[in-house]
Amino acid sequence: MAFKALLFDVFGTVVDWRSSIIAEGAAFGAAQGLNIDWAAFADGWRAKYQPAMQRVREGNSGWVKLDDLHRANLLELLDEFAISGLSDSEIDHWNKVWHRLNPWPDTVAGLTRLKRDYILATLSNGNVALMVNMAKRAGLPWDAILGAEVAGHYKPQPEAYLKTAGFLGLAPEECLMVAAHNGDLRAAAACGLGTAFVCRPTEYGPDQDFDLAPENDYNFAAEDFLDLAGQLGC
Amino acid sequence: MAFKALLFDVFGTVVDWRSSIIAEGAAFGAAQGLNIDWAAFADGWRAKYQPAMQRVREGNSGWVKLDDLHRANLLELLDEFAISGLSDSEIDHWNKVWHRLNPWPDTVAGLTRLKRDYILATLSNGNVALMVNMAKRAGLPWDAILGAEVAGHYKPQPEAYLKTAGFLGLAPEECLMVAAHNGDLRAAAACGLGTAFVCRPTEYGPDQDFDLAPENDYNFAAEDFLDLAGQLGC
Repeated sequence: MAFKALLFDVFGTVVDWRSSIIAEGAAFGAAQGLNIDWAAFADGWRAKYQPAMQRVREGNSGWVKLDDLHRANLLELLDEFAISGLSDSEIDHWNKVWHRLNPWPDTVAGLTRLKRDYILATLSNGNVALMVNMAKRAGLPWDAILGAEVAGHYKPQPEAYLKTAGFLGLAPEECLMVAAHNGDLRAAAACGLGTAFVCRPTEYGPDQDFDLAPENDYNFAAEDFLDLAGQLGC
Repeated sequence: MAFKALLFDVFGTVVDWRSSIIAEGAAFGAAQGLNIDWAAFADGWRAKYQPAMQRVREGNSGWVKLDDLHRANLLELLDEFAISGLSDSEIDHWNKVWHRLNPWPDTVAGLTRLKRDYILATLSNGNVALMVNMAKRAGLPWDAILGAEVAGHYKPQPEAYLKTAGFLGLAPEECLMVAAHNGDLRAAAACGLGTAFVCRPTEYGPDQDFDLAPENDYNFAAEDFLDLAGQLGC
């Protein structure tokens, strides 16, 4: 069966969250006269991501969208880094740095080629507003914003993959999950989706020692989105 | 407060469902040697639309997406018009004529201008797959596909409007509902959204005698999407 839609992981696969946060942090720190290790700040924020979603997955708190998880994690982080005195609106602005992440250099050109032949949808744990604002700023040409919030389940729960395919009116095997993370692709494959690994070896910085290569037999393994477009004949 | 997102009714406001269905019907009828009044067929199909959604609104059957309501209505209609002998896949293809509706002449140019300054999202009773396939074929540059299926409520139920604004992270008053139907706009206004009436005086054919003019004090009343773009300074 031919693939009709490409479903994209976004943080790390489409956008470079780490360097984007470091850059905003450095500018903020310079303006405020703060001496902060912004790489550690970015990594610390991201380290709180999976545990926060896990609490939602375990159903202890009902659905909580990622913007709200990010904000609760940010409050902890500001305390850990001894950054104080920010107003609520300044904290909100900081929290929305996730809406202002920059794409990898190949992202927009690659998506633009892929869009000619496939439906392109997000299948991210990011909430709809985050994805829409990011796309608007970065020029990401999505056909649909789907994923965790619309499905009501965070990846890697199967409902996140299956409901996303269902919203598109497609069988799982008509959807190709595109991600830089082996765990995401294993969960998608277990639901019957096709899989494409795209290598993002510096997502976690220069010392990244995981997700450097495909660990399973995926349908595709690509260097970047332009390579994937070429392999798909776009 | 300034509007940040424009939320669009789609059937009749963005696309000309009636002439699109008539055109496909005429081609189908000619190929099959059928003598059918395709305008009556289109009008008959549309007449079954509100009653079918009303059964869902009243909660008798759980959520049923519009593709499925359309298909059940189509089966009745084929019987009423004495069209027989279609295979399941031919019926499916006919049902998906709603995915192949043509935009009004000003639609794509108008949306393209509006998209520069606003988030553009669907707030239709059409399901996600229908909206995505329609947009892909017609070149509708949506930033997000939202509306009834994602909200789990058909317009004019308030949840359809309020949840759509919520997914975008916006207050109702930051959203401008754009529709050719006074009833839709009244329901949106009751939820606190801004309102823009766009005149589509032939949506229901040459004898249309309703929704020919704005019946309330809306934020905007426009001849078409280009006029609306001009009024919004795009």
